[in-house]
Amino acid sequence: MNLLKEHSGLYTDHYQLSMAQGYLLSGKQQVKATFDYFFRKNPFKGAYVIFAGLGEIADYLENLRFSKEDCEYLESIGFDRKFTEYLKSFTFKGNIYAPREGEVVFPVEPIIRVEGNLVETQLIETALLNYVNFSSLIATKAHRIRMVAGDRLLTDFGLRRAQAHGSILASKAAIIGGFNSTSNVFSAYAFGLESSGTQAHSWIQSFDDELSAFRAFADIYPDKCYLLVDTYDTLRTGIPNAITIGHELEAKGHRLQGIRLDSGDLAYLSKRARKMLDDAGLHYVKISCSNQLDEYVIRSLLEQEAPIDFFGVGTRLITGQEDAALDGVYKLTESDGKPRMKISENLEKMILPGIKNVYRFYDEDGMMYADGIALEGETDLKIIYHPYQTYKHSSVENLKSVVLLEKIMENGKLLNKLPAPYEAAGYVKEVMSKLNPEHKRFKFPHIYKVGISQKVLDMRTSLINNIRSKML
Amino acid sequence: MNLLKEHSGLYTDHYQLSMAQGYLLSGKQQVKATFDYFFRKNPFKGAYVIFAGLGEIADYLENLRFSKEDCEYLESIGFDRKFTEYLKSFTFKGNIYAPREGEVVFPVEPIIRVEGNLVETQLIETALLNYVNFSSLIATKAHRIRMVAGDRLLTDFGLRRAQAHGSILASKAAIIGGFNSTSNVFSAYAFGLESSGTQAHSWIQSFDDELSAFRAFADIYPDKCYLLVDTYDTLRTGIPNAITIGHELEAKGHRLQGIRLDSGDLAYLSKRARKMLDDAGLHYVKISCSNQLDEYVIRSLLEQEAPIDFFGVGTRLITGQEDAALDGVYKLTESDGKPRMKISENLEKMILPGIKNVYRFYDEDGMMYADGIALEGETDLKIIYHPYQTYKHSSVENLKSVVLLEKIMENGKLLNKLPAPYEAAGYVKEVMSKLNPEHKRFKFPHIYKVGISQKVLDMRTSLINNIRSKML
Repeated sequence: MNLLKEHSGLYTDHYQLSMAQGYLLSGKQQVKATFDYFFRKNPFKGAYVIFAGLGEIADYLENLRFSKEDCEYLESIGFDRKFTEYLKSFTFKGNIYAPREGEVVFPVEPIIRVEGNLVETQLIETALLNYVNFSSLIATKAHRIRMVAGDRLLTDFGLRRAQAHGSILASKAAIIGGFNSTSNVFSAYAFGLESSGTQAHSWIQSFDDELSAFRAFADIYPDKCYLLVDTYDTLRTGIPNAITIGHELEAKGHRLQGIRLDSGDLAYLSKRARKMLDDAGLHYVKISCSNQLDEYVIRSLLEQEAPIDFFGVGTRLITGQEDAALDGVYKLTESDGKPRMKISENLEKMILPGIKNVYRFYDEDGMMYADGIALEGETDLKIIYHPYQTYKHSSVENLKSVVLLEKIMENGKLLNKLPAPYEAAGYVKEVMSKLNPEHKRFKFPHIYKVGISQKVLDMRTSLINNIRSKML
Repeated sequence: MNLLKEHSGLYTDHYQLSMAQGYLLSGKQQVKATFDYFFRKNPFKGAYVIFAGLGEIADYLENLRFSKEDCEYLESIGFDRKFTEYLKSFTFKGNIYAPREGEVVFPVEPIIRVEGNLVETQLIETALLNYVNFSSLIATKAHRIRMVAGDRLLTDFGLRRAQAHGSILASKAAIIGGFNSTSNVFSAYAFGLESSGTQAHSWIQSFDDELSAFRAFADIYPDKCYLLVDTYDTLRTGIPNAITIGHELEAKGHRLQGIRLDSGDLAYLSKRARKMLDDAGLHYVKISCSNQLDEYVIRSLLEQEAPIDFFGVGTRLITGQEDAALDGVYKLTESDGKPRMKISENLEKMILPGIKNVYRFYDEDGMMYADGIALEGETDLKIIYHPYQTYKHSSVENLKSVVLLEKIMENGKLLNKLPAPYEAAGYVKEVMSKLNPEHKRFKFPHIYKVGISQKVLDMRTSLINNIRSKML
């Protein structure tokens, strides 16, 4: 779903255009370059990220254009006509390597590798970061919530509190992470998601009494009726009135689907509601809850044995609380046939140079053991080293492995259709079944091992020495 | 800038469509209704919100349509053809009352009042909340940062970490809150903002040495050259190389604009950089900084007298850290000529009934004293009551006042063109000069007084009594 359409080229940071113009005007536009996308820190104090946003990148890259209007605008703010002439016929013709959407990924390892000329690889940085950082953040958050919710229904209710149009991709990412449906009709339409939703307090308030409001709703939706019971008093009027409607629907051969609690103590109220419904013979009526939920609140509710069948999760899902951003970056690792790096003031801001891939090693039980970052084509890894504390290393000899990054785009064209969101969600389930539970703890998880190969280590050391030698 | 174009009608929660269909099928579509937008809790532990997002609402409301394709989609997911036929010719024909964009607003008070029929007022809820909540959150955050930065330049660098397309409105809201410019070219184009940006580490890395990279950039941009100095070693190579370029530019009659620090200790490095530049006669070269900045970090840097001229603020601005969402809601306050309310399990989730406006009272020095929520048309307020602890009250007798909500849309049409973002930013400055500094503290601020009139209080009491009497 390309929202930006004819102005996709402008969806970037100003400096990408400054640099692209610079590369063109200094004759470097044909120089080959490789960039890696990776992140440095797991969100939510966890140990992993669910990779998402690939569909958006592919769509963006295939449709990236600079319209005549865009070029006129760029000239009006000072860009050179030589550059805008170049942009007019610009299309992305590079190659993209990435794991499948829904793959579990870890800090430091390359997740997306982009190959092409300097101009095209540079120009796409911002949109790529924007789409992947955000979609992966939300898919990861959604997956955490799915882990505690078990088989209960989960619906994304976040649109109204979303960071404006961020909602559109967030709702898709929530499905990838394991949600069942969304309240967001636009996303449902755009990405083939299931949408759902019944009524707000305003429906109840707009009638002179609660029972009439419930009855009118049940008349129109006799087979998909959820009733919101907290407008006036949940236990004294809301649930009793819902029970009346439940019996009326039964008499007409229908069934009340559920009630929704949106305020008060959800553990207390859901238990009372369950008992009242059961006592009235309405054991099949589901209890749905909303109101500032996240993985911690849901876990607490279920520990208290709150009989809730269905959670609507809003703000804290859609904005990725408590983190709000994944710190993914996009760094040059090779250009003009030479490996490139950056040293920086902070050790962890250093870059791993060279054209690389990731091997994922499995133990004898078929569980994920470690990921090894190696140069592309490097096979038969025996030892992997901690990326910064290289005195730490692990043997991966004789372990089964798979290669994580596969070519998904060639010359700017997608090689295969990407899986739809619910399919990617299925892949998440499959992948996560191979990750040991210690890595899935919400806080203080066991850190999953990611190492670098001897060749990557040697290349980095030699580049650092080379750079340092010039300083002296 | 309407991103959703032909599918604007689908940008909503499923339940709005369920309810709208319900109103139509139960013959209530012509019933008149009034909704209030308000929020309950100030973000960032502060005492105020800068109201923004009005431009987006106006644009959305004027262009809200359901296309043939939308209607087919809605039928495919179970909506009734009678409803989709109605939607095909649907346009918003209601009235909107609101303050000017950039106004300072407070919890509980109505900020937007929407009048129209039940269907149209209900259908617009989600988009209105989405746009106003987010834009106001970011404008407020930007304003906090502006307060500490004084006259220094502020640029929004957030696009890459933004919540996907949320970036587009966020960059605009940042300008309203007081930022000078943005890196986001699309937002700059769409809203007439100033964009800026020079180079990333990849530019430096793509050359065989730092000095050549700087020189190539200076050749192309001799009059707008900022150099990023931390790719290899800020003090040993970055700044010395920048000084060389500064002298080369001088020799050709140009001036190096500045350097940028993006890692390390910004207080320490900026002081060292300033001294090195000054010692080399380059006192005019500016120092710009980025890397996880927000109002607290900037305040700390300036307390340490870091000689920084220009801050680039990314993640924490664009995602509104540490809050990520403003909790604004949209509630029915009158329908069919009757005031409406909701009681709820939580006291603070209660609604103030009736068609209301807000009076802003000023003290004898012309500073803001209190806001009073009154019924529309109620004049000559003498006392205002705390909304929940009504034994607390204040006299506003003989104080000068202005009315906050004015009609900005009539029958779905905007009455006057809305101010552009930089103009709204000017209004923010003007308004904030009348708010006492105690309300501007970042933490534990003095809470600004917001009260309700006797008539609003009486109306609420009588409605509660009426609802309660039916329960017994």
